[in-house]
Amino acid sequence: MIVLKNNEFIERNKATIDMEDRGHQFGDGVYEVVRVYDGEVFLMQDHLDRLQYSLDEVEIKYDVKEQNLSSLLEQLIKKNKVHDGGIYLQITRGVAPRNHPYPKNAKPMLFAYPLELSRPLQAQANGIKTILQKDFRWLRCDIKSLNLLGNVMTKQKANNANAGEAIFYRDDNHVTEGSSTNVFIIKNGKLYTHPADNYILNGITRRYILFLAHKLNIPYKEKVFGLTELKEADEVFMTSTSAEVTPVVEVEGDKIANGQPGPISQQLLEAFFQYNHVEQLTNV
Amino acid sequence: MIVLKNNEFIERNKATIDMEDRGHQFGDGVYEVVRVYDGEVFLMQDHLDRLQYSLDEVEIKYDVKEQNLSSLLEQLIKKNKVHDGGIYLQITRGVAPRNHPYPKNAKPMLFAYPLELSRPLQAQANGIKTILQKDFRWLRCDIKSLNLLGNVMTKQKANNANAGEAIFYRDDNHVTEGSSTNVFIIKNGKLYTHPADNYILNGITRRYILFLAHKLNIPYKEKVFGLTELKEADEVFMTSTSAEVTPVVEVEGDKIANGQPGPISQQLLEAFFQYNHVEQLTNV
Repeated sequence: MIVLKNNEFIERNKATIDMEDRGHQFGDGVYEVVRVYDGEVFLMQDHLDRLQYSLDEVEIKYDVKEQNLSSLLEQLIKKNKVHDGGIYLQITRGVAPRNHPYPKNAKPMLFAYPLELSRPLQAQANGIKTILQKDFRWLRCDIKSLNLLGNVMTKQKANNANAGEAIFYRDDNHVTEGSSTNVFIIKNGKLYTHPADNYILNGITRRYILFLAHKLNIPYKEKVFGLTELKEADEVFMTSTSAEVTPVVEVEGDKIANGQPGPISQQLLEAFFQYNHVEQLTNV
Repeated sequence: MIVLKNNEFIERNKATIDMEDRGHQFGDGVYEVVRVYDGEVFLMQDHLDRLQYSLDEVEIKYDVKEQNLSSLLEQLIKKNKVHDGGIYLQITRGVAPRNHPYPKNAKPMLFAYPLELSRPLQAQANGIKTILQKDFRWLRCDIKSLNLLGNVMTKQKANNANAGEAIFYRDDNHVTEGSSTNVFIIKNGKLYTHPADNYILNGITRRYILFLAHKLNIPYKEKVFGLTELKEADEVFMTSTSAEVTPVVEVEGDKIANGQPGPISQQLLEAFFQYNHVEQLTNV
């Protein structure tokens, strides 16, 4: 495996980090996971725009455009002959003597490398079970940061319960998102998902689904919904770069509708590759 | 500098981490900062007990006692001839292919090394200014985890405002703690600090101060207080392993009492080294 470290391509076994990298000591960095289909990054520009947003919010001085990150990632994909898979990339604030405030002279540190990803065809066909988890994460979930311990603990809890995902809620009237996914519900033919604010990550796939809904004339609205609306929905599905559209058929032991993936979820999944020539999502 | 990596002592320049260490990708680890006075760790056992608590809460399988961590740290101090300073130590879940749930076969990874720390004598003599920050961190602040981005961003905000610390509050009636300290107020001779629950880190120095209050017959109570009680306190001070007892003389532009360090803060600071032969704090 070839790894991209800043703007150099190195062997996997050379891909080490100094112990005082702020990523390692503070989770002081941001990341992206991009999907590669047929050797091409899906919605590259949207991922890079979001990366720049995360960088700016935590004031890490790295300019995605100036660094030609798009071209570096394309080279990384070629060098590793990634046809169907993903790329993980993270940028930390760099190495500095341990101290909370932003160090003046640290140089941002980028690592990117291929991830094995295959399409979750079985989960998409059958739907998945989910559990509920009170959302105890920080209130800047809009930043795709390396502070993921809450998500990790929660995904493990879902695993322990033989569930495919955990759905977070702040209170009974406020469902936010999954531990690594966005959540959508459908009621009476209309699609709902949490607004893109500080409580959730504005998923690229989430935005792509809203774009598809627009294209397919499925009415949709970004609004907060609660646990009752979630459990009494006609359909529930979750989205992420790797999950694409994956139907949810059970929430904390309660079946969603008849416990089978629903028709609008199916329709969106079928349309998923119809528009994948789209270069960049506009604000839909 | 000699660094402790698991149970080996290595040269500083060899202290590197694999890029797939979960500390680096998820902040999936816990840490401690211990203070060394006269070549001895202050309240070692209390720090190790808290470390074990953090490890257990995030289910990292590392047994502090079994690994003889106490003895390893003593050796590290000797090898580095630390007389007056600190030791930073962190344990991550180890290296594994990137995936949220706890990996089955990862081996926990410990790093420990000396930190330069000197007593904040000037801040203790003059007191410090603080700003306020709405607490946007996760709701498991009792775990001393590597997910510190919220603390880091907030400390930077304090720096930008030429303040020594930022004090978090969940809402007007609920002050929690500082970005890297615990907060105490004194009103009518009585000491108050936030209860040791999920909203704060139960500081070792915090506990030592309660122990000192007990010894000095200063009445104290662990209870939630609000912004008004904070600003109208007779004295405010903060505590941490490196801050010891540092008076707060200003909160978000408002002077505390006459804007000078108060007598009970002084008394506690003077008593600080009187009981430093204490091996382990009992529950006071």
